Amino acid sequence: MVVYLVGAGPGDPDLITLKAIKTLQKADVVVYDRLANEEILKYASGAARIYVGKRAGAHSKKQEEINQILIEQGKKYDNVVRLKGGDPFVFGRGGEEMLALLEEGIPVEVIPGVTSAIGVPTSSGLPVTHRGVATSFTVVTGHEDPTKNEKQVQWNYNADTLVILMGVGHLEENIQKIMEHKDPQTPVCVIEKGTTPDERMVLGTLENIAQKDIKPPALVIIGPVVDVYQSIQSKKR
Amino acid sequence: MVVYLVGAGPGDPDLITLKAIKTLQKADVVVYDRLANEEILKYASGAARIYVGKRAGAHSKKQEEINQILIEQGKKYDNVVRLKGGDPFVFGRGGEEMLALLEEGIPVEVIPGVTSAIGVPTSSGLPVTHRGVATSFTVVTGHEDPTKNEKQVQWNYNADTLVILMGVGHLEENIQKIMEHKDPQTPVCVIEKGTTPDERMVLGTLENIAQKDIKPPALVIIGPVVDVYQSIQSKKR
Ligand SMILES: C[S@@+](CC[C@H](N)C(=O)[O-])C[C@H]1O[C@@H](n2cnc3c(N)ncnc32)[C@H](O)[C@@H]1O
Ligand SMILES: C[S@@+](CC[C@H](N)C(=O)[O-])C[C@H]1O[C@@H](n2cnc3c(N)ncnc32)[C@H](O)[C@@H]1O
Repeated sequence: MVVYLVGAGPGDPDLITLKAIKTLQKADVVVYDRLANEEILKYASGAARIYVGKRAGAHSKKQEEINQILIEQGKKYDNVVRLKGGDPFVFGRGGEEMLALLEEGIPVEVIPGVTSAIGVPTSSGLPVTHRGVATSFTVVTGHEDPTKNEKQVQWNYNADTLVILMGVGHLEENIQKIMEHKDPQTPVCVIEKGTTPDERMVLGTLENIAQKDIKPPALVIIGPVVDVYQSIQSKKR
Repeated sequence: MVVYLVGAGPGDPDLITLKAIKTLQKADVVVYDRLANEEILKYASGAARIYVGKRAGAHSKKQEEINQILIEQGKKYDNVVRLKGGDPFVFGRGGEEMLALLEEGIPVEVIPGVTSAIGVPTSSGLPVTHRGVATSFTVVTGHEDPTKNEKQVQWNYNADTLVILMGVGHLEENIQKIMEHKDPQTPVCVIEKGTTPDERMVLGTLENIAQKDIKPPALVIIGPVVDVYQSIQSKKR
């Protein structure tokens, strides 16, 4: 019995790793939720499937229930794959699943994936670091963990590039807080459904980005690297 | 003519993406430097190879020379692959190569890879984010860009987790600066040669980590997620 926490990549099914494919191929059961692309499940054609994500009209399963399912399956099967979008440890609650499984004596292996936080801007030709422009970047959730209330986010992140995941719901209020620390003219790029056929880029500034029509899942990228992206784009024409 | 900037992943040859493999398979020529694993070149068995990294006793090629080689090859061949460790846009100078190529009218496509900054800690069971512990992380270079001198790094990054790449050379001085802003008892984990058979983990605190024997390539991970890693490890025994 081993439970593999496997990163599926950001959306494009070809952005899965060979290691993830090999692990899916030997899976007895795959536990998955909202995947950017269900095509990836084809690698586990012989495996049972357990869907733990949102169903139309119903809520998604609670993390506690998912942990219980993983424990049950881990006790039953040799190779259980817990498939997650992007990288399992980037806002994927993989650490909690790992702790819950180890608590029950079930071995866990983690297989990293291309995280949307980096893979999506890279695919679009937007470099999160760039010599002379950005030598640091911060990745943060826009949907702050309610269990972390004592440590209220100040939004004064001081890296050169800021990448916000789960940033659509609270975009306006978070951008307001960011503008207390950064120039309202700082360029912003939003990438919706990156690396998929429905990818959409929205450009703006801190001052005007919240007024634009943006739908999840999306990344919000803030900083001078957005200007580098624009100069790359202008050279393409 | 297309030049593909392709991320090779952090070291384990199976952490390459399917998209990178498919791109290597159609390559006419592969331009590469210090790869964690040359095994990856097998996917481009028919392609010419141009090595632009360090040779024993000689310096590695300057970025300007590498750009020139890419331009030449791009004009000559249909499919040129520029292979890079990790993700091409995480301290990989991919943005500069892309700009130089577009300047010459050569189309560029970028294929993201699993960056060492996230893939290495994830593989080791160290979550860079963890509910209630870390809802943000900053990735930074320890080898500050000399062209960026006007904007001297303060090392006062305020995300919950700090990941330093190229951090071994200036470790002592950078840790000194970090201790001006963080508790000297903050836990630190160094991962050398992650995802390879020679992987080595070194644990410590800001106060004592610089005294330990650390060799590049290595990642330095600072913050309370290192305690999460330790509690994960303790449950394994
Ligand atoms: C719960 S987090 C999981 C992140 C995942 N573990 C990763 O490493 O990419 C989900 C968020 O990731 C971002 N995201 C995931 N896939 C995306 C895509 N294809 N395009 C844009 N953003 C994406 C969005 O911000 C979304 O709200
Ligand atoms: C020039 S940077 C390139 C990073 C690369 N583009 C990426 O996304 O991983 C090289 C640095 O990456 C880190 N690194 C790369 N591979 C690593 C590995 N297998 N283990 C630990 N650190 C690694 C080290 O900090 C090294 O100094």
